[in-house]
Amino acid sequence: MSATPVRVALLGCGSVGSQVVRLLREQSADLEARVGAPVELVGVAVRRLDARREVEVPEGLLTTDAAGLVASGVDVVVEVIGGIEPARSLILSALEHGASVVTANKALLAEDGATLFAAADKAGRDLYFEASVAGAIPILRPLRESLAGDRVRRVLGIVNGTTNFILDKMDTSGAGFTEALEEAQALGYAEADPTADVEGFDAAAKAAILASLAFHTRVVATDVHREGISEVSAADVASARQMGSVVKLLAICDLVEGPDGPAVSARVHPAMIPRSHPLASVREAYNAVFVESDAAGQLMFYGPGAGGSPTASAVLGDLVTVARNRLQDVRGVGESTYADLGVLPMGATTTRYHVAIDVEDKAGVLAAVAQEFAKQDVSIQTVRQQGRGEDAQLVVVSHRATDEALSATVAALREMSEVREVTSVMRVEGDSE
Amino acid sequence: MSATPVRVALLGCGSVGSQVVRLLREQSADLEARVGAPVELVGVAVRRLDARREVEVPEGLLTTDAAGLVASGVDVVVEVIGGIEPARSLILSALEHGASVVTANKALLAEDGATLFAAADKAGRDLYFEASVAGAIPILRPLRESLAGDRVRRVLGIVNGTTNFILDKMDTSGAGFTEALEEAQALGYAEADPTADVEGFDAAAKAAILASLAFHTRVVATDVHREGISEVSAADVASARQMGSVVKLLAICDLVEGPDGPAVSARVHPAMIPRSHPLASVREAYNAVFVESDAAGQLMFYGPGAGGSPTASAVLGDLVTVARNRLQDVRGVGESTYADLGVLPMGATTTRYHVAIDVEDKAGVLAAVAQEFAKQDVSIQTVRQQGRGEDAQLVVVSHRATDEALSATVAALREMSEVREVTSVMRVEGDSE
Repeated sequence: MSATPVRVALLGCGSVGSQVVRLLREQSADLEARVGAPVELVGVAVRRLDARREVEVPEGLLTTDAAGLVASGVDVVVEVIGGIEPARSLILSALEHGASVVTANKALLAEDGATLFAAADKAGRDLYFEASVAGAIPILRPLRESLAGDRVRRVLGIVNGTTNFILDKMDTSGAGFTEALEEAQALGYAEADPTADVEGFDAAAKAAILASLAFHTRVVATDVHREGISEVSAADVASARQMGSVVKLLAICDLVEGPDGPAVSARVHPAMIPRSHPLASVREAYNAVFVESDAAGQLMFYGPGAGGSPTASAVLGDLVTVARNRLQDVRGVGESTYADLGVLPMGATTTRYHVAIDVEDKAGVLAAVAQEFAKQDVSIQTVRQQGRGEDAQLVVVSHRATDEALSATVAALREMSEVREVTSVMRVEGDSE
Repeated sequence: MSATPVRVALLGCGSVGSQVVRLLREQSADLEARVGAPVELVGVAVRRLDARREVEVPEGLLTTDAAGLVASGVDVVVEVIGGIEPARSLILSALEHGASVVTANKALLAEDGATLFAAADKAGRDLYFEASVAGAIPILRPLRESLAGDRVRRVLGIVNGTTNFILDKMDTSGAGFTEALEEAQALGYAEADPTADVEGFDAAAKAAILASLAFHTRVVATDVHREGISEVSAADVASARQMGSVVKLLAICDLVEGPDGPAVSARVHPAMIPRSHPLASVREAYNAVFVESDAAGQLMFYGPGAGGSPTASAVLGDLVTVARNRLQDVRGVGESTYADLGVLPMGATTTRYHVAIDVEDKAGVLAAVAQEFAKQDVSIQTVRQQGRGEDAQLVVVSHRATDEALSATVAALREMSEVREVTSVMRVEGDSE
């Protein structure tokens, strides 16, 4: 047991930061025992000293000089500001000044992780970020360490609580997207500007981080095909229900066989999954991540995906690890990109489509529709036809094909004279086909 | 990248060991990249050289001299023999000779972990054991590391696949215990002598390991209250079904307020849990572990709880970590028992009971039964009464009370003249009461 404390600087004191302050205080005896030295909070950088906070920060710790704090020779810097700047500059400065870093900043990691990891390597310090994906759920450490002797094939997750809350509302109440979003905003599950969540930017950043760790390859946010949920309609949700499925916004990272050998596919989009799939029962703002690997098989990790206190739990877990490493003067597991696989574009990724079409109810329509699938070499798994007065509805579920072929098929269907409207197009995931 | 290989000795080449051999070979390039040095299998100790194996072990590696192998100066010893001896002596010798150890041996850890951890401390080497609990599911590392900044309150898990398979069969088919056990044996889910599984010894060892890690306190197998499933009847399972519940064998580790302050309670017994609880949907031989902590809230970890290949995945994950540590000449997280809490006896632990009773159908019986609960200061949550000809059936679910008071109540009920038979007694877990 060392008597010299591990000195910690905190950047940001919002919903996560204030819970970090609280846990550092409430758990201080336990943290000391687990780290092997006292953990001392020596400064908290904030934008405004007089802002209302959820926690009382001890006298003298608050400062608006974040740059001065990270350069003051602390042992660990915890960054929970979020966003690209000034977070990036502060983390880089912290590493240059010899601090280890714990961050929850998914956007920065997914945009420019390479710069951060290079700086950590150069400084010989740790850069840990469990809190950046799926809040309190331990998922990065299992991927990096527990599965280090295995080959991960797929990571399939619900990693954005806001969109899951909205889709869950739409499923249970029949509400449309706008109505469900408003309820999420009223309850504090969605922000006033919900773009980052509903358009899938947040989930895409997390998918990039998950794919990087799972496949030992650098994957950035722009490598991830991204579609949000703002176009998901009540009709899509109802159509899923008829199929015994539910619509979820999924982050999907696959190890695939590309034209030049193994490659990574990473995508975020809404998809129908069968209600019997474990991810289907993930309700409200919870998160869950499925991992499939060669030897372990299917694993699932479930828990609260956001919130100040759960995210702070993940931050503190990392803090204990990097503090222990400091005391031993070693580094934990760093970035691993040795596999250096290519990233497959979405068009070349194989998926399955569910397509609902309003057509004229006359002979030959089904054959004509089937012909459009065949032209793109897409084979059909099931067709359900329901007459409705002069119209009929066709619901087609395809077998696996490239996304390019599938979307070309849908475009061709829209041009058909017999097709009144393509009412729902949604990818299908999570069943064995 | 080091050119000097990490030299690994394997003890045991059964269903787990043979998969370790296979993965070491198939993943050798990845393992080298992840560890930072080649990982070389230098010997495999077996009882009989000519036994049939699932894997071809390279010429010259097999030996019956396990003692010689562990003393030969290898870097890491992987022990997958199981049982107390010779596993304990071999692990102690390995540590004395400077090797780090990876083991899947739950029975040994739960019986005499203290001796092993002391030897690891003395040698300054790692002792890792992720594979000892819940197969491939990363649960020990998250408890030890990811949640190191949090306070764990409860670990509630299905950690024995054999008993879960049997109970699942009983639930879905209405089979009795004996019939379901025979099916499990025929399918290879249960051993010819199923005692360790069905009487809860295996789950109790895992509960001891989980409680030790969760509460930073040494908990051994005999500290764990243990009841198996051989007394679970078709009537119990049917009674659970009527309640909207299902019977599962649970390992339950709680941080509780004892008479002298915080204490640990650890127990393994069948219990009814509501079908809406995530653990209720854990089918067949799968495992799942719920963790509740102050800051993170509820987390769940799910996956295959046994099997050669999943268990080997967990072994290899540990192997990568201890190999990396060897290269850096450091130790990972060791035993943590600083909290040193007392272990509460089962009688003092609070639980809830579901009791089904056949009684004479006459006035005053319900009052008399309720009186027996009141005598022990146990309050009743619900009573359901069903007339059946001359008899009636009462189903009583209690509020929380000490197990002592609850079992005394049941004993008193059995003595009542109005009671023909107590047909089902089962604890209730997993609902919010």
